[in-house]
Amino acid sequence: MIIIGEKINGFVPRTGQAIEERDGEYIKEIAKAQAEAGAAYLDCCPATNEGALDIMEWMVGLIQEATDTPIALDSPSADILVESMKFVDRPGMINSISIAGDKVEKIFPLIAGTEWKVVAMLDDEDGIPSTAEGRINAFKRLLEKMDEYGVKPDQVFVDPLVETLGTNEESCTVFTQVCREVRELCPDIHITSGLSNISFGLPVRKAINMGFMVLAMNAGMDSAIIDPLNRDMMGIVYATDALVGNDEYCMEYLTAYREGIFGPKQD
Amino acid sequence: MIIIGEKINGFVPRTGQAIEERDGEYIKEIAKAQAEAGAAYLDCCPATNEGALDIMEWMVGLIQEATDTPIALDSPSADILVESMKFVDRPGMINSISIAGDKVEKIFPLIAGTEWKVVAMLDDEDGIPSTAEGRINAFKRLLEKMDEYGVKPDQVFVDPLVETLGTNEESCTVFTQVCREVRELCPDIHITSGLSNISFGLPVRKAINMGFMVLAMNAGMDSAIIDPLNRDMMGIVYATDALVGNDEYCMEYLTAYREGIFGPKQD
Repeated sequence: MIIIGEKINGFVPRTGQAIEERDGEYIKEIAKAQAEAGAAYLDCCPATNEGALDIMEWMVGLIQEATDTPIALDSPSADILVESMKFVDRPGMINSISIAGDKVEKIFPLIAGTEWKVVAMLDDEDGIPSTAEGRINAFKRLLEKMDEYGVKPDQVFVDPLVETLGTNEESCTVFTQVCREVRELCPDIHITSGLSNISFGLPVRKAINMGFMVLAMNAGMDSAIIDPLNRDMMGIVYATDALVGNDEYCMEYLTAYREGIFGPKQD
Repeated sequence: MIIIGEKINGFVPRTGQAIEERDGEYIKEIAKAQAEAGAAYLDCCPATNEGALDIMEWMVGLIQEATDTPIALDSPSADILVESMKFVDRPGMINSISIAGDKVEKIFPLIAGTEWKVVAMLDDEDGIPSTAEGRINAFKRLLEKMDEYGVKPDQVFVDPLVETLGTNEESCTVFTQVCREVRELCPDIHITSGLSNISFGLPVRKAINMGFMVLAMNAGMDSAIIDPLNRDMMGIVYATDALVGNDEYCMEYLTAYREGIFGPKQD
């Protein structure tokens, strides 16, 4: 599993406070902690319109001081994303684009032929398609654009988009169906998700989130945007990889356990 | 999900102690607690050869004093099971039979045409078949015997049998494949499992057990032999039923939460 650490995001209250107070030590500390817990990318999201680029530059600098882990530049604005690419000293990830609007045209030419990755959401001009078919149509349009610009499958992390289970009982089954069809259409592409939206408004969100993680991984999701310091969730991620046959003799499960990534804290 | 409460079993250390000390209050207490936590059946296993029938009679009496929940009589001996059926005042469950040996011949005539249920393991004369195909062959032989004696599909809880993941990386994938094929061959049959064997010898067994529960339910398992007082596991069970589309608007999930079956303790 390719973990994208979600904590350096202004929408996370403690991080929002650190941004407000320009508390660089905290940003460096959670960058390091997430990298040590196995994050392959560190999300970096100012979560504001005002001064977004300045905050991005400040946070990117801190993350690069603290770790060698590549950064997922996270903004709803294609222009902010393009400008932010100049701050990083290593290829990272663009989070995110979708087929709607001009993001593909602005981002794909910059990442084609490079080691940059991109998260591509499966919404379209009308929002999130309610059916699996609608999201697969968005995916097919994305595949055409990848072909047109020369962006390779292993550069792309498809986000099938998660709706709330409490208001849509098919949200998980549609999601897993999209995962299976995406995997079939393009075996080498990655599939990722923020996933916690699944449990919005329900009690004991942890139970729903963990069950959803298992089902999504079983359907072919090979990445997730989560808090790698959530030891229970990391345990379920490693357990599922072993259960579905991706981890011979549970070697990765045992290694992660010995490294203290999940299980009871041993300090 | 049809939960079979596993705690009244001499192999569970605290229960073994209660049996040794003939501590009837403890047996009644855990019978009541499991019934309140949503167990549809209460397993009752002396876990000894010596005096097994006396212990069974004593425990059955206590469970029937404490609750109205039907009992799963649990013994490796068909004769003990047959004799124990006389102790109960309500139709329950026989745990377990398999196609090997004379258990089918001893048990099926007694339960045909009644409300009794039976757990049927998919081993054969050579032990546990290593492949899904081998277990499905055992299942087909079972279906023939059900037909011969007039035992109906909804009386039978098939146990596909769980091998340890640490020594067999295919144990979960074989199990889920058997679940799918059993469900396809006989849609009205039940599928159950003791399941904790999956994590034997591995650290943080809880993570493996929970991941396995989700995958098995997703493959069609509709029952489990577990501790219904394990709140984390019960949360995952209700969450999975909602995620796979068995729980409209999460009504059962919300009800179970309000009844205190999972989530933070509210006393």
